[in-house]
Amino acid sequence: MNALPESVEALIAEFTRLPGIGRKTAQRLAFHLLKSRGDAPRRLAGVLERVAADVTFCPRCNNLAERGELCGICADPRRDGSSICVVETPPDVLAIERTGTFTGTYHVLGGAINPLEGTGPEDLALDSLLARLQDGDVTELILAVAATLDGDTTALYIARLVQSLGVRVSRLARGIPMGGDLEYADEHTISRAIQARVTLDD
Amino acid sequence: MNALPESVEALIAEFTRLPGIGRKTAQRLAFHLLKSRGDAPRRLAGVLERVAADVTFCPRCNNLAERGELCGICADPRRDGSSICVVETPPDVLAIERTGTFTGTYHVLGGAINPLEGTGPEDLALDSLLARLQDGDVTELILAVAATLDGDTTALYIARLVQSLGVRVSRLARGIPMGGDLEYADEHTISRAIQARVTLDD
Repeated sequence: MNALPESVEALIAEFTRLPGIGRKTAQRLAFHLLKSRGDAPRRLAGVLERVAADVTFCPRCNNLAERGELCGICADPRRDGSSICVVETPPDVLAIERTGTFTGTYHVLGGAINPLEGTGPEDLALDSLLARLQDGDVTELILAVAATLDGDTTALYIARLVQSLGVRVSRLARGIPMGGDLEYADEHTISRAIQARVTLDD
Repeated sequence: MNALPESVEALIAEFTRLPGIGRKTAQRLAFHLLKSRGDAPRRLAGVLERVAADVTFCPRCNNLAERGELCGICADPRRDGSSICVVETPPDVLAIERTGTFTGTYHVLGGAINPLEGTGPEDLALDSLLARLQDGDVTELILAVAATLDGDTTALYIARLVQSLGVRVSRLARGIPMGGDLEYADEHTISRAIQARVTLDD
């Protein structure tokens, strides 16, 4: 079918590589960009070029940063450097920042240990984490990895790795989500919540 | 919140301008492009630049084309130039091409008449349509505009415009969609289908 110019086909193909974007959605996006006959494609190209040129990883915490500098959080003097929240990916940082309840700093591992997918400890940003702990200012490590098998493996690995460094290590609590109905919670979550039940002080 | 570098925020903002893409999806797309630490952002920027530089509108039918040339359909000698299917937008061409039942050429109006939105006949590619009809080779005009009020207005306008040119003008049939259950069809569709009922020859 030659109903579409080659360059438009190439754009649609590139859009379908994005997560959750099928052929139909990709077509809709491409037509939308072309519809206005304006500079929409060029403007999007511009920000993509800028991202490609500028985005680096924070030399301290491995979060997204720009031009080799510290990320916004590591560069902020109001953040408490003695507490490090360890997460798997940059979106996890965003999720925790949205709560507004954590005032420490982060460390982005870049994934979780998964032997089946060939991701071992050497693929994670653990050397830089150890270096930060050995600086001596850090007193607390919060392992905010996912509540999955990979997350469990990673948390266990890190807990052992830092055992001798005298840092308090904790992990996010697990249980019934706020507003969550017991009827819709799965059996693993419920049994975890039973095991980790909290005494009500009166 | 300074959890994200400025360039990444700019990319997310640009993604949210696309139809059906909210802040969460835009974030997911941006993180996906950055995840691989590869050339994904630059590759997408490249095809966008190419689209911005190359895509033009077919000088004959106003469909998407490249570098000022005829579109793929107008340039195809196997297409029957005596039949023109008039559509509102380029995606409509794709939709009809997918059926594989039309072997003529197209004319893309670039919209439909909508006085409330300020779209009048002068905003549509009608001059170029008239020029094609006055060439004399065209014998049939199929108005494949949408089955909406705007489509109706546009079809009526075009039918009157070409009245004196001796061209057969038709419009797509309307009725119950194939596989459509009467229970779920709206009353306008059903009353149309009753009015346009077809006698069964036996």
